Parts: sequence; C-alpha cells; structure tokens
Amino acid sequence: MSKEITSRQEDYSQWYIDLVKKSSLADNSAVKGCMVIKPYGFSLWEKMQAQLDKMFKDTGHQNAYFPLFIPKSFFSKEASHVEGFAKECAVVTHYRLKNDEVNGGIMVDPEAKLEEELIVRPTSETIIWNTYKTWIQSYRDLPLLINQWANVVRWEMRTRLFLRTSEFLWQEGHTAHATSEEAIAETVQMLNIYAEFAENYLALPVIKGVKTANERFAGAIDTYCIEALMQDGKALQAGTSHFLGQNFAKAFDVKFSDKDNKLDYVWATSWGVSTRLVGALVMAHSDDDGLVLPPKIAPLQVVIVPIYKGAEKKDLLDAKGKEFAQQLKASGISVKFDDSENARPGWKFAEYEMKGVPVRIALGLRDLENNTVEVARRDTREKMVFGMEGLAEKISKLLDDIQQSIYDKALAFRDAHISKADSWAEFERLLDEKTGFISAHWDGTTETEEQIKEKTKATIRCIPLNNEQEAGKCIFSGKPSTQRVLFARAY
Amino acid sequence: MSKEITSRQEDYSQWYIDLVKKSSLADNSAVKGCMVIKPYGFSLWEKMQAQLDKMFKDTGHQNAYFPLFIPKSFFSKEASHVEGFAKECAVVTHYRLKNDEVNGGIMVDPEAKLEEELIVRPTSETIIWNTYKTWIQSYRDLPLLINQWANVVRWEMRTRLFLRTSEFLWQEGHTAHATSEEAIAETVQMLNIYAEFAENYLALPVIKGVKTANERFAGAIDTYCIEALMQDGKALQAGTSHFLGQNFAKAFDVKFSDKDNKLDYVWATSWGVSTRLVGALVMAHSDDDGLVLPPKIAPLQVVIVPIYKGAEKKDLLDAKGKEFAQQLKASGISVKFDDSENARPGWKFAEYEMKGVPVRIALGLRDLENNTVEVARRDTREKMVFGMEGLAEKISKLLDDIQQSIYDKALAFRDAHISKADSWAEFERLLDEKTGFISAHWDGTTETEEQIKEKTKATIRCIPLNNEQEAGKCIFSGKPSTQRVLFARAY
Repeated sequence: MSKEITSRQEDYSQWYIDLVKKSSLADNSAVKGCMVIKPYGFSLWEKMQAQLDKMFKDTGHQNAYFPLFIPKSFFSKEASHVEGFAKECAVVTHYRLKNDEVNGGIMVDPEAKLEEELIVRPTSETIIWNTYKTWIQSYRDLPLLINQWANVVRWEMRTRLFLRTSEFLWQEGHTAHATSEEAIAETVQMLNIYAEFAENYLALPVIKGVKTANERFAGAIDTYCIEALMQDGKALQAGTSHFLGQNFAKAFDVKFSDKDNKLDYVWATSWGVSTRLVGALVMAHSDDDGLVLPPKIAPLQVVIVPIYKGAEKKDLLDAKGKEFAQQLKASGISVKFDDSENARPGWKFAEYEMKGVPVRIALGLRDLENNTVEVARRDTREKMVFGMEGLAEKISKLLDDIQQSIYDKALAFRDAHISKADSWAEFERLLDEKTGFISAHWDGTTETEEQIKEKTKATIRCIPLNNEQEAGKCIFSGKPSTQRVLFARAY
Repeated sequence: MSKEITSRQEDYSQWYIDLVKKSSLADNSAVKGCMVIKPYGFSLWEKMQAQLDKMFKDTGHQNAYFPLFIPKSFFSKEASHVEGFAKECAVVTHYRLKNDEVNGGIMVDPEAKLEEELIVRPTSETIIWNTYKTWIQSYRDLPLLINQWANVVRWEMRTRLFLRTSEFLWQEGHTAHATSEEAIAETVQMLNIYAEFAENYLALPVIKGVKTANERFAGAIDTYCIEALMQDGKALQAGTSHFLGQNFAKAFDVKFSDKDNKLDYVWATSWGVSTRLVGALVMAHSDDDGLVLPPKIAPLQVVIVPIYKGAEKKDLLDAKGKEFAQQLKASGISVKFDDSENARPGWKFAEYEMKGVPVRIALGLRDLENNTVEVARRDTREKMVFGMEGLAEKISKLLDDIQQSIYDKALAFRDAHISKADSWAEFERLLDEKTGFISAHWDGTTETEEQIKEKTKATIRCIPLNNEQEAGKCIFSGKPSTQRVLFARAY
C-alpha cells in the first residue's frame, strides 16, 4: 500500500479525509451530504453501540423505536424548538411515483400529495412526547427511561465524513420524570456515562460543562456537554445531555397524577451521541501513517503476520501462528492470523498500520529458533521482542498499556492546550498561535458571545461543571464577570 | 389486569391487534401507517437481531450502512425493479422549512426545492450497486458479503402492526460474486440460515421454496422464500433470498476482471427479514390469554413471584426468591424476581401470561416448609411442583422442553393443514373449510395464477425445494402439469 495520505502538518483537513477514505471507514455517496459507512467504519460504530447500549441498560434504560417521519405541525408546538430545528430538514411531500409517459423514466405522481407534509426526523422529541401522552397517566408510569438507536437527517450544505453529514446515525435517550430534581439527576448521570465512555473506551479526555443560553439545544432549559480537543487545536462537542424541564410536556400536554392525585406536567430529559464520535476518535489519535485506535474500541486488536522464506518451515510458522491466535482468542483478545500469500509482509504491515490495529506480531524463522516473536505497537511504533512463553498474558497487558498511553498522550496534549487569556489581545493571539481551549472571563451576555464569534470564529464551548468562581472582567466588553468560560474554535 | 383481548374464535384479526397492544409490543403512531415499537416489542426484535447478526457474521458477512435516500433516477436503471418498487414510496422534494409569516406555524420553503427528488429507500439494491461500482474492480474484491440493518419505507394504505407498516425495520444483505454458481450457493445458504433461525429460535416451522415468476422480487432471476402458517390457516412469507443474476451489475455497470484479466459483470444476491417476524411469532403461537413466546427468543424467560401472607416470613420468601433468581441467572437464564407490593399475585400471573413469559415460579409459605416451588409453564398452562434441590437445572431442562413443544405444536398444526386438491371444487372447498396450504397442480402460467388469485384470493406461496415431480392436470385450466405447488391465502 502506498502511503498516499496528506500529512497533518501539510493540511489537517485533507489528512482527515484521506485517512477516513484510505482506511476504508467511509466514503461519500451519490446522495449529496450522505455518507456510506464501510464495513471497517461500521464495525467501529458497532463497538461503540455495544458498549453504550450496555451502559444504558445497566442504568435501567430500554430501547424502543419511533417513526422516521414527523408531521410538520408537531414542530410548531414547542416554541423554541421550532426555531432551532425544523429548518434544514428533508420534507416528504408525496407518497407515490408513476411512469413518466412523456419523458420516459419515472415521475412524482402529482395526485399523491400528502395533506400534511412529513419531516424526516432531525431529532425525535416531538413525536416521542406526542406518544408519551398516551403512555403516562400516573406517577406509577414514571420514570420512563427510553433510548432509541436511529438515523436522523439535518440538511447540511457543507459536510465532512462522520463529523457533519446530512444523514447520521445516533442514539437519542428520552426520559420522563415526576420531579425536576430527578430529571436533572438523570441529565447529569447520562453526561457522566458519556464522559466515562469517551475517556475509558475512546481514550478521549473530555471536559464536562454546561452550554450558554445561545448554544443550548432548542427547547432545553440546560444543555450539558462533553467537549474534546482534536490534534489541530479545535474543539469537538462529543455528546450532549439536555434537561428539558416541562417544555415538551406542556407542548404535548403530558400530565401525570402524583400520589395525592394532583396533576402536574412531566419533567423531561434527552441525550445523544452520534457517528460523529467515529470522526472524533480518528481525529484525536491518528497519525500520518494511518489510524491509531485504542484497543478497547479497535475492531481487531492484534494481527499475527508470518514471515515466510519460501516454503522453508512454512508449516511450522503456520502452526505456531495459529496456536498463538488461539491463545489470544481464549484470553478474549480479537486477533487475526494473516497467512494470505498474495501480499508481502511489508505491504501487510503498512495496511494494518493504516487500519490502526493496536498490536502487530511478526513471526519468522529466527523467532522459531529463539522462541520469540517480534511485537510492534501501533501507537508509539515501538518494536519489542517477547518470549513465546505466556504470550497471551503479555499481549493482554500490552493492550492495557496502549489504551492508557493513548489516553495519557491525548490528555497531555489537551491540558497543554488550555490557556488563560486576560485581555482581548492575548485572547486573539492564543487562539491563532496556540489554538486549543482558552479560559477567559465573559460578561454573560449573548451579545458579547456573538460578537466574539463573529470576530474570531471562536465559540463558548462550555462553562465547566464545578467551575471556580472568581471576580474578573470580560475580555471583550470589560464588564464584570464572576467566572471564566472555555472558548475555542470548534468542529 | 383485566383480560380484554378478543378471542381468536371470535375475530382472529382483532385478537392479534388486541394482543399486540395489550402485551405492549407496539402501537399505532401519529403518522399514518407508521408504528411505535414499544420496549417489550423492541426487545423481541433485539433478540432476533442478535441471533441473526451472529449467524450472518459466522458465515463471513460484515455490516455496513448506506444512505436512507435514493435519487429518483436510480430506480429507472433496472427495468423490472422500477415496475415492482419505486411506486408507493415516500418522496422528498424539499430540504427546508421556514416560518409562515401569513398563517403562523411553519411552511415548506418553496425556494428549497431539490433538483432531483429523493426517494426514502424501499430497499437498497440501487444505491448499493451504484456504490459497489467503486468498490469492485477485480476478482480479488470478490466475494463482497455485506449486510445492513436499516429502516425502509413502502407506503401502505392498509396497515397492520408489524405485519404491514409503511416504515419497518429489517436487514438487507447484498452480496457480489464472481460466478453464477457462487451467487446461487449464497442465495441458498441465506435461505437455509433463515429457515434454521425460524425453526430453532422462533419455533416456527417453515417451508422452503421458490416463488413463481409473478411473485418474484422485482429485478430477481429467482426468489427463494420461507413460508410459515398462522393459526387462522393463512400463510405468511417470513423471509426471502434473491438470486439477482447480473441484472443490477448491468444496470449500474459493475464489472470485474477475472484471473485472466477478462472483464465480466458481477453476480448478485440480496436477502432480508424484517420486523414482520415479530408479527409472525405472535400469530403463530399465542393464545386468548396473551403471548406464548419460545424461550430462546423470550426477553424474560422466568419470573419468580413470592406469595406473601402479610409480613409473615416475608424476609425468608424474599431471601429464597432472590437466591433462586441468582441460581437461574448463573445458569444463563434470564429471570426476574417480582417482589413489587403494589400488585397482587393473581394480577401478576395474568400480566406475565399476557407477556408470554415461558415459566412462572410461585413461592409461598407452604413451599418454604416443603422445600418446593410451584412451576407453571405458559405454553400448556400446566402446573407442577418442583423440589428446590437443583432448581436451575430443572428449569433449564423445562425451557428446552417448552421450546421443543411449541415447535412441535406448530409443526403438527402446519402439517395437518397441507392438503392435496385434485379438482377445482376440492380446491375451493379446502381453501374455505380447511384453510392452510393446498398442494395442487398448476399449468405454470401467470395467467392461471392471477385468475386463481382473483377468484379465491389464494396465491402460489412457493414451489417447494426438491419438489416431487409428478404428471398431473392444472386444477384450474386442466392443462398438463409436472408438479404440485403450494397455494394459500396469505398475509
């Protein structure tokens, strides 16, 4: 495999696109803005799904499925929701095609026009809360803890594989509670699950925080988020968890009777992560030779490549390679013994580097003599010689080391890219020269926030949870401020 | 829970709808023809998905994901495909909404009209083969064995929960091969996997066969199917596997160079099963008291219900109940200890009967004295007393018995409902009086097939695989025939 990917230094954006395509994660499709997720990319998403689904179920959530289509009028029911969503949406207006007798081919049947247009869901709060109305009568029906794995569509003019596509895959949790306190606790619990998942599985350090009013989900009282940092110093929102108050319950008239038979509106949360996480994973750890995948999320953790010298001892190499593969498999490690003969070892090495397989084991004639194998870790490119004795245990430990090491590296980079700015000049300089998160005082107004965004393209990523309170002056307006917030340019 | 479901005797159709709703499998939604799959129904689908996904992967298939939308023009590329599909479809014509300044609410922005309409996929052959064009160049790229779990939309005027809905969930396999033989072998392999899954997991006996030309998938050379029989004597197509020949490769110009560098079109298959299987499962086994679920697919296999007498020995009952739950769980059985105090045991019994939990264990004060438990199996309503010793092993065996027994019952019913008809009068009589499959000679023409359908609503479900060849006369036209085919009224 020729290494045809652009280097990060040269063009970070192009590096990302090259990488996603060359490592066979995804590709553009014939439909503008929609991507094809190729098997290798989809297997990453499946690994993420399996882990998240387990975490959701362990905390009492159940999966369900709601319609793809939402009647147009539903979007007008929650006042702020309609402003934020239901704009760049795919609209279904007809339900039939027919043969085009004049021009050939097929045409939309003008007689099959829907009375009310249907919107392909950009998110499902409205259709779900319209359903919850029939599911919830009493406090005994609460809490209702539901999650949905689904595709959603938000029409995008400028797209980027995984990070921003018109159709994407995600999960959306929608829960209903009897009290505000319980709903807030759920919102925070799910934020913590997202953070734990990002850090422990994706090896992606994240900052937990709350969005400003301006960056809030349309219809939410509070939007909590996890923010990660990419290698180019740009931030990426990796997940959000919304406390929706009683907004949707009021919009769809969902009331419950409490133990004293008193009627009240239900309290809501919603929370989601998407295939965007695949993009975040790729951008955060990979290098100019290909993907770097944390072992806990890598579809394939170890590859064993035999180094044949013609037919000499080929049987022995194969037997030993398969034996090791069996041993590793028995220890719960996903492993492939690649004995294909239509590619040379060097080609295979480059291929598995491109794919980000965490550990490569090479097995040659000399290894047979010495009872050793050559082990290469993808993240640091380090090569080691391991004795054959107890190989599975050693590899298992190595995979743990790699997982930790990828996280530590990302954490060190992230921490080195959180800078304090106490003046506008410093803010602008840091943003351009150092990049990353900038911790700065802000006067709390949307006006200032938007002016800063307009001038610098930096947005307030979040107000960190448990943020230190300190008196200061807004870097832009000079007005008094009680805390610093995190700014960054973002994906 | 009051048993408000209509009996099968009274109205089979209404029984089914009542059952699906009362057992909380699914409900209608605000969007005509689209259903909401409730958590219990979705957990059935998840169990099916997990098993099928494993079977697909064990036979070398990988999952991927292709766009929800298909450009309208794609449907015209495969001549017969356009006739069969692309008619009753959801059509996206616009990509933006805006505030309606005149009437309030929101409206479709007339300026955001798509140049080419997009069709919400009714099936994905066209978009996938358009993609395969870029993936396949040489024989080394073959076979390509891909599966997709997705939602699809086929506009339906008359819908029925799970069995026929405008949106449904399914998997669609799309494979590409170098030879016709290999593609046919794949088609048959997937049919066999479907049959094995239906019989061993859903306890649903199926007949494997081939569709007539008239009932073939639009664009297929041959459509293989599995046909099941419901309790009302109507057949239900439970899965299909299509040999597509080179039709889609030709339509989308997908060629590969073989080992001799000769170019040829690629050979294709596609195969799918859907959430319809949930409907089949419900219809095949359930009774007037609720669902009857085969243990291998039941989301919950065993429920343990303590029978409290006030506070007397409540602690002991709870301790014992939890101990048994632990024991069963350790044996890989899914189990719930239902110690909730806001429902009486009788109510719980009815509820778990409605939900089709295969085994109920009741634990009362007398049981504590006698070291016994009362065990009730859902399928036969039989009650037994089991000693506490080695309970997990006994229950495990009982679950196997239930699985087999449900299958045997369905098989006996199915076999008792395959009748031979040798005259038109007999055919009509059997169809009305006995129902089920009718094995009869047919002259092989679409004309006869359609006339029979028009007169009786019976269709040819399939020509069974390895069908016996025998000379006979078509029951309708009297023309000569070489084999019997299976007719039935069907869902």
